[in-house]
Amino acid sequence: MKSVQLNEFWRLASRPEIIAWAVAQHEGRRSICPLGWKMRTSFAPPMVAVSIAPKRFTHGLIAASGEFVLSWPGEDQAEATYFCGTHSGQNTDKFAEMGFTTLPARHIQVPLIAECAAHIECRVRGRLETGDHTIFAAEVLGAWIAEPPRRLLCSIHPSSGAEILLQRGGYSFGVVR
Amino acid sequence: MKSVQLNEFWRLASRPEIIAWAVAQHEGRRSICPLGWKMRTSFAPPMVAVSIAPKRFTHGLIAASGEFVLSWPGEDQAEATYFCGTHSGQNTDKFAEMGFTTLPARHIQVPLIAECAAHIECRVRGRLETGDHTIFAAEVLGAWIAEPPRRLLCSIHPSSGAEILLQRGGYSFGVVR
Repeated sequence: MKSVQLNEFWRLASRPEIIAWAVAQHEGRRSICPLGWKMRTSFAPPMVAVSIAPKRFTHGLIAASGEFVLSWPGEDQAEATYFCGTHSGQNTDKFAEMGFTTLPARHIQVPLIAECAAHIECRVRGRLETGDHTIFAAEVLGAWIAEPPRRLLCSIHPSSGAEILLQRGGYSFGVVR
Repeated sequence: MKSVQLNEFWRLASRPEIIAWAVAQHEGRRSICPLGWKMRTSFAPPMVAVSIAPKRFTHGLIAASGEFVLSWPGEDQAEATYFCGTHSGQNTDKFAEMGFTTLPARHIQVPLIAECAAHIECRVRGRLETGDHTIFAAEVLGAWIAEPPRRLLCSIHPSSGAEILLQRGGYSFGVVR
């Protein structure tokens, strides 16, 4: 057993990691924040938790509106994921920039992005500050899957042997099924 | 876009999911709780969050001691993961039952299981009740990787095409690299 630095540790222990986008809007502003730090956290009521840094524009939208959509990009959205992760919604409308089509959600005001592979509608029920991030714990009010189902985008270690779609700026995106 | 039940949704959106074991001890009692619901939640200080149901024996040990090891089983631990997930530490010493070898951790009292592929030492810094689970948010004090590195066990959808190691009781374990 070898003691290692955390960067080395997480390269081993967190890849492949399915990527999701936290999508939020409030008072006419909207944004998209790609993230890997998410988990389920309750069966009944069904809940998920996401970790988002307060410096992200999306963080403020979720804190103010109390709701968000968690969307899973498909394999054709590696470029969009990179763009949304490297620009701020403070000065960019990522929906317009990416040319996304929106569909109404059923339970909340945040729209679904038609180009994504899967979505859940989420209402915040609790939050916890954790170092440099905030955990938003949210009830899942509805779920959507694109037809036909599509392969989900993952953050992948380049040496994994899995199918790599985009490597840029230290990120490596691919699919595992 | 099709509205779906959550069971169907998570089959698509959360597989493959790397499995970890929350390992805890307090006043001579010890246990192991396999879980998929975990995420990183801070860069500085480095933190992780896990979701554990209060009915789990391990939950009480973590709540009382304020620390746990998060261990990643390797590909040879599918059977052990199934055993630990389907028995309670209330009436079973899973370490003894599995014949595990323990090694001292560096920062906390909980031991490392020598048979596992990777470990982090965790001290609880916050908690949040979420429906039928508790989120424990913990600082990561140290990290360990087995030498040579081993492939990590995942919860995998049987139709994924990935290598399946064990299917039992509704669980499907395998590896993706």
